[in-house]
Amino acid sequence: MEAVTPLRRERIDRLRGLYAIADGAATRPSLDLIAAFLRGGARVIQLRLKSAGTAELLRVAREAAARCRAHGALFLVNDRPDIARLAAADGVHLGQEDLPVEAARAVLGADALIGVSTHSDPEMDAALAAGADYLGFGPIFATASKPGAPLPPPQGIEGLARAVKRAAPVPVVAIGGLGADNAAAVAAAGARCLAAIGELCRAADPEAAARRLGLAFGGGGKLG
Amino acid sequence: MEAVTPLRRERIDRLRGLYAIADGAATRPSLDLIAAFLRGGARVIQLRLKSAGTAELLRVAREAAARCRAHGALFLVNDRPDIARLAAADGVHLGQEDLPVEAARAVLGADALIGVSTHSDPEMDAALAAGADYLGFGPIFATASKPGAPLPPPQGIEGLARAVKRAAPVPVVAIGGLGADNAAAVAAAGARCLAAIGELCRAADPEAAARRLGLAFGGGGKLG
Repeated sequence: MEAVTPLRRERIDRLRGLYAIADGAATRPSLDLIAAFLRGGARVIQLRLKSAGTAELLRVAREAAARCRAHGALFLVNDRPDIARLAAADGVHLGQEDLPVEAARAVLGADALIGVSTHSDPEMDAALAAGADYLGFGPIFATASKPGAPLPPPQGIEGLARAVKRAAPVPVVAIGGLGADNAAAVAAAGARCLAAIGELCRAADPEAAARRLGLAFGGGGKLG
Repeated sequence: MEAVTPLRRERIDRLRGLYAIADGAATRPSLDLIAAFLRGGARVIQLRLKSAGTAELLRVAREAAARCRAHGALFLVNDRPDIARLAAADGVHLGQEDLPVEAARAVLGADALIGVSTHSDPEMDAALAAGADYLGFGPIFATASKPGAPLPPPQGIEGLARAVKRAAPVPVVAIGGLGADNAAAVAAAGARCLAAIGELCRAADPEAAARRLGLAFGGGGKLG
């Protein structure tokens, strides 16, 4: 495996705290959501616009990247290394049906942060072997964010703690059914980030929801 | 505008004859369609898999690229420069809602062939100014290939002939409602390629349909 560059190392180190996913399926425009998440203290923003045209995705990604930079937050694009590169994002997040890590890295280069969604030990091991810079892991609790999609069973806080140990020193981003009520347990289990979609995108006040989640989670990363 | 590299020039020169679009919405697997189109003599293959996961798209694109290479046909990927690059395709085809030409070129480099769908003089002029290597132009006749999508009015053979002159020396790929009955007129109007989707993807025998269309079109490119 190739060496981690200083810029990529810095990006990995900055992966902490609230990881807010702006979903194009939300009723609010993605850029409005991202602005609210950043004001609310999110440290990582992921843009997921599955149904937009590519030109629109690039437009939104470029603007989102600029806003994240201004807040010192990391900016990741879901699924599309070409858009991540063109928008000068910090990296991409890949689902299990997205590109393999090495393909995304071939497009993005050695400085990019590449994360992979995982839901089981075999998926974690494969992503680690492929050189993922962080692992998404979940769902921790039951969730309704992806209606229709077949989701693996919830992992619980114990499953998260096991995943954090399995992945170490690669950081784990916990996702799925997370809120202010369970954020402290997620932090205690060693997750470096708490990720949320529906809890933030469907909130009446996304800025307040981000602030509440980020404060409840604290710094995160006890073990990461 | 940057200079056209020798490899890109060669790719532009090879853009002739039947341009077959394998659409993921077809009932047959895309690779089966592509194999049939190539056996039937298609000189250009475009892969359009809008609803596939990205990993699946890359898998199909890599295999399609190998088959096209073996037949000496050009291989283009719809919309996704990252996939085109990873599959070592000859280039990409961009719709009006896809990436701008310069963005696609930033991902693909100077050797890639980049085409743009156009439906009017302003769209043609914009694509030419952006440095498109060829223009898709249509619909020439009414078509049902994109049910639900709002399509511009058919341009007719006269509209095509005007477009060919406007674009020259940039080649024009005619599309929309084309079949063996009007292919000779399309060639006479100066289109370098005749492109087809539904006529080929929905054919009972895609290989025979490709052969019939390619023969009816002839070499193409009287003016191109």
